[in-house]
Amino acid sequence: MSSLSDYPVEVQTEVKQLRETVAKLHAQLLRWNLVVWTAGNVSQRLRSADLMVIKPSGVRYEYLTPESMVVTDLQGNPIDGAESPSSDTASHAYIYRHMPEVHGIVHTHSTYATAWAATGRNIPCALTMMGDEFGGQIPVGPFRLIGSEAIGEGVVQTLQQYPQSPAVLMRNHGPFTIGSDAEDAVKAAAMTEEVAHTVWAAEQLGDVIEISPEDIGRLNDRYRNVYGQH
Amino acid sequence: MSSLSDYPVEVQTEVKQLRETVAKLHAQLLRWNLVVWTAGNVSQRLRSADLMVIKPSGVRYEYLTPESMVVTDLQGNPIDGAESPSSDTASHAYIYRHMPEVHGIVHTHSTYATAWAATGRNIPCALTMMGDEFGGQIPVGPFRLIGSEAIGEGVVQTLQQYPQSPAVLMRNHGPFTIGSDAEDAVKAAAMTEEVAHTVWAAEQLGDVIEISPEDIGRLNDRYRNVYGQH
Amino acid sequence: MSSLSDYPVEVQTEVKQLRETVAKLHAQLLRWNLVVWTAGNVSQRLRSADLMVIKPSGVRYEYLTPESMVVTDLQGNPIDGAESPSSDTASHAYIYRHMPEVHGIVHTHSTYATAWAATGRNIPCALTMMGDEFGGQIPVGPFRLIGSEAIGEGVVQTLQQYPQSPAVLMRNHGPFTIGSDAEDAVKAAAMTEEVAHTVWAAEQLGDVIEISPEDIGRLNDRYRNVYGQH
Amino acid sequence: MSSLSDYPVEVQTEVKQLRETVAKLHAQLLRWNLVVWTAGNVSQRLRSADLMVIKPSGVRYEYLTPESMVVTDLQGNPIDGAESPSSDTASHAYIYRHMPEVHGIVHTHSTYATAWAATGRNIPCALTMMGDEFGGQIPVGPFRLIGSEAIGEGVVQTLQQYPQSPAVLMRNHGPFTIGSDAEDAVKAAAMTEEVAHTVWAAEQLGDVIEISPEDIGRLNDRYRNVYGQH
Repeated sequence: MSSLSDYPVEVQTEVKQLRETVAKLHAQLLRWNLVVWTAGNVSQRLRSADLMVIKPSGVRYEYLTPESMVVTDLQGNPIDGAESPSSDTASHAYIYRHMPEVHGIVHTHSTYATAWAATGRNIPCALTMMGDEFGGQIPVGPFRLIGSEAIGEGVVQTLQQYPQSPAVLMRNHGPFTIGSDAEDAVKAAAMTEEVAHTVWAAEQLGDVIEISPEDIGRLNDRYRNVYGQH
Repeated sequence: MSSLSDYPVEVQTEVKQLRETVAKLHAQLLRWNLVVWTAGNVSQRLRSADLMVIKPSGVRYEYLTPESMVVTDLQGNPIDGAESPSSDTASHAYIYRHMPEVHGIVHTHSTYATAWAATGRNIPCALTMMGDEFGGQIPVGPFRLIGSEAIGEGVVQTLQQYPQSPAVLMRNHGPFTIGSDAEDAVKAAAMTEEVAHTVWAAEQLGDVIEISPEDIGRLNDRYRNVYGQH
Repeated sequence: MSSLSDYPVEVQTEVKQLRETVAKLHAQLLRWNLVVWTAGNVSQRLRSADLMVIKPSGVRYEYLTPESMVVTDLQGNPIDGAESPSSDTASHAYIYRHMPEVHGIVHTHSTYATAWAATGRNIPCALTMMGDEFGGQIPVGPFRLIGSEAIGEGVVQTLQQYPQSPAVLMRNHGPFTIGSDAEDAVKAAAMTEEVAHTVWAAEQLGDVIEISPEDIGRLNDRYRNVYGQH
Repeated sequence: MSSLSDYPVEVQTEVKQLRETVAKLHAQLLRWNLVVWTAGNVSQRLRSADLMVIKPSGVRYEYLTPESMVVTDLQGNPIDGAESPSSDTASHAYIYRHMPEVHGIVHTHSTYATAWAATGRNIPCALTMMGDEFGGQIPVGPFRLIGSEAIGEGVVQTLQQYPQSPAVLMRNHGPFTIGSDAEDAVKAAAMTEEVAHTVWAAEQLGDVIEISPEDIGRLNDRYRNVYGQH
C-alpha cells in the first residue's frame, strides 16, 4: 500500500495522533538544548501498522506542525506528507526493523554527548542516574556516513553489545536514543546529554570514581522493576 | 491517622497552602537549570502536624499541579494524593525525623554539583558567597543506593560534621539541601550549583585561593546575624 | 543615487521586505545565544540593486525594528534610515563587492568560536556536521583593526583559501559567516558556535579523532548535492 | 534632609524616574545570566541631588518593583523606601563619593568573572571587544569583607590603577562595574562576564594570543572617540 488512504481507519487515526505527538516532542529537544537550527529528529513507530511518523527534512523547528510530519513505511518509503522525510529516515527504519520492541527513536548532535563521540570514548558510569537509566557506560558506535541505513546498522550492532543502554554515541557524529515510544526516547536523549555534561565536568576536576558493576546492577534493577521505567 | 480527613482543619489548611508552595517551587528548579526531565524533588514539612508535602514520582514538570503533590507522614507513608510519592520520600522523611529544625528539603542532580560528587571532592571555600551561605566547604557524603532511607541517613551524618552547611553532595549521585522551609532549601540548591560551577571554572584557570577559616567565620557570622539569613 | 526615493519601485519593495527579514533575524542571534547586548550584526544584499540592509550601530536588540535598519550602497554609504549603520558596514560592503554570490553576512562574538579565534587555531574537522556544513576545518583569519574595510579584506582572503567554508574566525575578534541570503548566514553562525563548543569540549576529554579528507569530501558532496544545501 | 519630601520637586521627579530605570535594569541581570536568586545589585546616582537609588536587600528578582527600590544619601543612609537597602550600599556610596563622574554601579557574582576572581588573576586582553570596552586587562581587586565600605575602597583603588577599565573583579568575591548611568554599568557587567567566559574557554585550548598595547590603544581610542562609547 503506497497511500495512507489505503490503510484501515485505525491506522489513519493512529497516524493523526502520532503527528501531534511527534511534532510536539521536537519542542522538547529545544527545551532541553539538545538541538540547534534543524539538527535533530524524532520518530515514532505505529502500533497498528508497519509505518512510522518522522520529522521532515531541513525545516526549522518553529515551522514544524503536525501536518508537516512525514509518514513512511519501515523501508523509509514516503506514504503520506507534503515534505521529504529526514535524511536519517533509512536509519530509523533499519532500527525499527531490527529491534521490534523499539517504538521511538531520537537523534541529536547535543554538545557534550557529541564531544564524547568525537574522541571515541564511552562515557564511564560514574552517576547513579546512569546506573538507573543506562545500566552502565554509554557506548560509542562506529563511524558511518550519512544518507543510507549504515548509521542504523551501527546503532543496532552497538546496542546489541550494550543491551541495557537506550543510547549510543555514533563516532564523530552524535547520539541516537531509543524507547518504547517517542517520548521515552526523548527522555533518554535529554538524560544522555545531562550525564555526558556532568561526567565531562567531573573529569576536569580529577579522578572520576566509577560505580561498581554490582551497584550498577542493583540501581538498574530497582529502576526498571520497582520504579517501573522501561 | 491514615487519611487527611482525620486531621484537624488547621492541618488541612496548611496542606492546601503547602501543595501550592511546593508545586510552585518546582518551577524554580527549572528556572535555575537545576533539573532535567523529572530528576529532582522538593518537599516541605508541616508546622501543624508530623506530615510533609512532596513531589509525585516520575511526573514531568509541566504536568505538576498543587493537586498532584503527595502528602505523607514522617515514615514516608502516603496520607493523601492520587500519585505515588517521589522515590526519595523515605530519605526526606529520615532527614525530617532526625533534624527537627529542618522544614524544607530539595534534591537535584544539578550538573556541576554532581560533577564534584562524582570525584568525591568537597568544594573548597574560595568565594565570599560560600562563606556567607555555606560557612565553608560543601561536603561530599557517602555512596548510598536509592530507594530506602539510606540516603537520608548519609545526608544527616554528613551535615552533623558540617553544621554550617545547608548542602551535601551525595557521592556519585547529587546534592541534597535543607532549609527552614522549602523556599530556603531551593535557594540553597540554586546557590550550591552556582558555587559548584564557579569554583569548577576557577580550577581550570590555575590555583584557587581559599578563604582563611577566620574570614569564613566573619562572613558567615555577619550573614546569619546581621543580614538575618537562616 | 543617494536617496532611496531615486530608486525604482521594485528596489523600494525589496528594501521593505529585507528590513523585515534582517530585523527579525537578529532575534535568532539571541535565540541561539550568539550575542550579548549589541555585539553582533546581520546584513543582506539586495537582488534588485547594489544595496544592502544592515543593523544600526549601538542599538540594543529589544529596540531593533524594521524601520531602524539602515540601507547603504556597496561602498557603505548610507542611502536610507535614521540611524548610523553598524561600525562593521565597510567590511560587509567589501565582502559583497568581492564575493558576488554572497547575499547574506553575519558577524558575532559568540563565546566558543571567539575562544578559538583568541588562540589562532583552526577548528579541526572532527564532526560529520562540520563535514556537511563547512567542508573541513573552520579557518582563523588575520588580526585586523575595526572601523575600516580591513576586516572584510581579511575575511575574503581567508575564504578564498577555504572555499568550502561559510565561516572564518577573525583572530582575537570573532566569527564572520556568509550565505546565499541573511538566513543562510545566520544558520552558519549558529552552526559555527555549536561545532566550536563541541570540539572545544572534546579536546578537554583527550585526543580528538579527525575525519579523513576523503570522508569529509563525501559528506560535503552529499550535503550540497543530495540534501540540497548551498 | 532625612526625608524625600524635604527635597525639591525636581529631585522627587528624578527619584521617580530612577526607581523605574533601576528596577527594570535588574531584569537585564537575569536576561544575561549574571545573577542567581538575589545575588546582585544595581544603583544609579541622581543628577539633581547627592542621592542614589539602589536595590533593596534580600528580595527575589521577580518581586522587585519601582516602589521597592530604596533611596539613600551618599553616606548610605536611607532617605526613602519601605525596605532596607542592599548590604553593598556603603560600598556603592563610597564609589560615588570618590568617583564623581560615575553615575551607575552594578555588582554581580557572574560565574566566569568570579572564577577569575577566585584565582586572583587579571583577565588578559586577548579580544578586540576587551580593547574596545575595557582598554586592556580586567583587573582583580583586593580581598575585602562584606558589610562596610571596605569593598568600595578596594574598587576605587583598583580602578585608579586601571583608569580605562569600567570593571574590577574583587578577589574571591565577584565583579563591580561602573558607568555614566546604571544602564552603562549593566552593559559593562554583561560584557565582563562574556569576555571572562571567552578568555577562560580560550585558555583551555592552548596559548592565548594577547593583543599588543599599541593595538589596544588604537581599539580603545576608536571606540571612545569615533564610535562614541566610553
